[in-house]
Amino acid sequence: MVIETRHFKTGDPEPTFPSDGKLQLLSMRFCPYAQRTHIILEAKRIPYHTYNVDLTNKPEWLTKYSPLGKVPALGVPTERGLSFIHESMVIADYLDEKYPEKLLYPKDPFAKAVDRLLIERFSIVSNAFYKIGFRGDINGKVELSNGLDEFETELKKRGTSFFGGKEPGMLDYMIWPWMERLVLLKYGKDIQYEIDEERFAALTEWSRKMIDDYAVKVHYITGDIHRQFVEGFKSKNVDYDILLT
Amino acid sequence: MVIETRHFKTGDPEPTFPSDGKLQLLSMRFCPYAQRTHIILEAKRIPYHTYNVDLTNKPEWLTKYSPLGKVPALGVPTERGLSFIHESMVIADYLDEKYPEKLLYPKDPFAKAVDRLLIERFSIVSNAFYKIGFRGDINGKVELSNGLDEFETELKKRGTSFFGGKEPGMLDYMIWPWMERLVLLKYGKDIQYEIDEERFAALTEWSRKMIDDYAVKVHYITGDIHRQFVEGFKSKNVDYDILLT
Repeated sequence: MVIETRHFKTGDPEPTFPSDGKLQLLSMRFCPYAQRTHIILEAKRIPYHTYNVDLTNKPEWLTKYSPLGKVPALGVPTERGLSFIHESMVIADYLDEKYPEKLLYPKDPFAKAVDRLLIERFSIVSNAFYKIGFRGDINGKVELSNGLDEFETELKKRGTSFFGGKEPGMLDYMIWPWMERLVLLKYGKDIQYEIDEERFAALTEWSRKMIDDYAVKVHYITGDIHRQFVEGFKSKNVDYDILLT
Repeated sequence: MVIETRHFKTGDPEPTFPSDGKLQLLSMRFCPYAQRTHIILEAKRIPYHTYNVDLTNKPEWLTKYSPLGKVPALGVPTERGLSFIHESMVIADYLDEKYPEKLLYPKDPFAKAVDRLLIERFSIVSNAFYKIGFRGDINGKVELSNGLDEFETELKKRGTSFFGGKEPGMLDYMIWPWMERLVLLKYGKDIQYEIDEERFAALTEWSRKMIDDYAVKVHYITGDIHRQFVEGFKSKNVDYDILLT
């Protein structure tokens, strides 16, 4: 049995984590950083339980497990009981080292370093995404396209379906949550952004293939549902549990 | 023979990197981030050459090797010639994976994740350091002490000489460059900060032992020299080559 709770909010009692040896993930169904962890866990077929958390009205006990009150936070069964780590990239590195059977990073340390740099570099795209979508800043449009240019060029240079090769690897999975959400920018109130499928031909084809990947598919959310969540979030009347009712 | 150049500045011709199979490090003698790389290379006894760069008047060719114009940038001999990676923590992870004979991170993936989180967490201390030392912001004093409290507590909890155990590990080395510079804050013009050796008894003892560590000692700079550099830097009349003449 796999637990996936509705979103705990202020006042809600703390969940009881079963002692079944499974990983325990504090998450939020629409959080792109938490989605990174879900995708890795699915890609590696690691069983885990999910405890969703309302990030607008956080439960009081959240900081006990995640000192900065953020998700994802991953509870790992250790000799001293359940211990939590946080920060999506720290968790990513941990999972790839602990469960190396299906390695997501390149095996070669130099190629791995290059992919780590690209994951950091992707913050240009994710920052531009928030600039356009949440702050209505028109400068975000050029920045987003310039940021995507680097990834388009890199993917063409690699000449493979995915950055990871024949199958998606860590770089593919770590940038995916924002690539999935790009479609949201079409519906902006003041400014809109739509991906140019000619300029970004390789990334467009990559996106189509990513949606068909098992690990991506499990937590994939359609543009319509993303939009419903974000509009609720902006009007301060958000239903975190849209997908869990 | 090991190369260590004076600081290349605007207009200076590009260095010729010898094809001797050694790592080639773009550095700046007083940069704490570059110091991280030097310490790791020394700890692992990896031979390398150093090309210092004036960060006030950067040489034009710097961005060819380090796209954001920052140091450290590490040139690695690969099949396709010398390839560069940057970002001190990406380089740290690369070196520990590529040269695992003397492993600096804990071998256990969970312990490693905890140390990675602490390295990120240390930004509270380094940010507070710049707040006090460069922006004269008095709030930095409380933030710095609160940040150090976490490390004092952690070191006591571990009950070992170093965070890494009997010998310094990655966490020790990655926070060291700012710990070495704390002494600078004594000499602030408007506000001063001096570490309370009672409140931070474990860290004070740790600092003494760190200075005696071989890898730390090679690039250790005394408070007086740090002060000379920083005062030059602030008065826009800095001699990058103080230690190289």
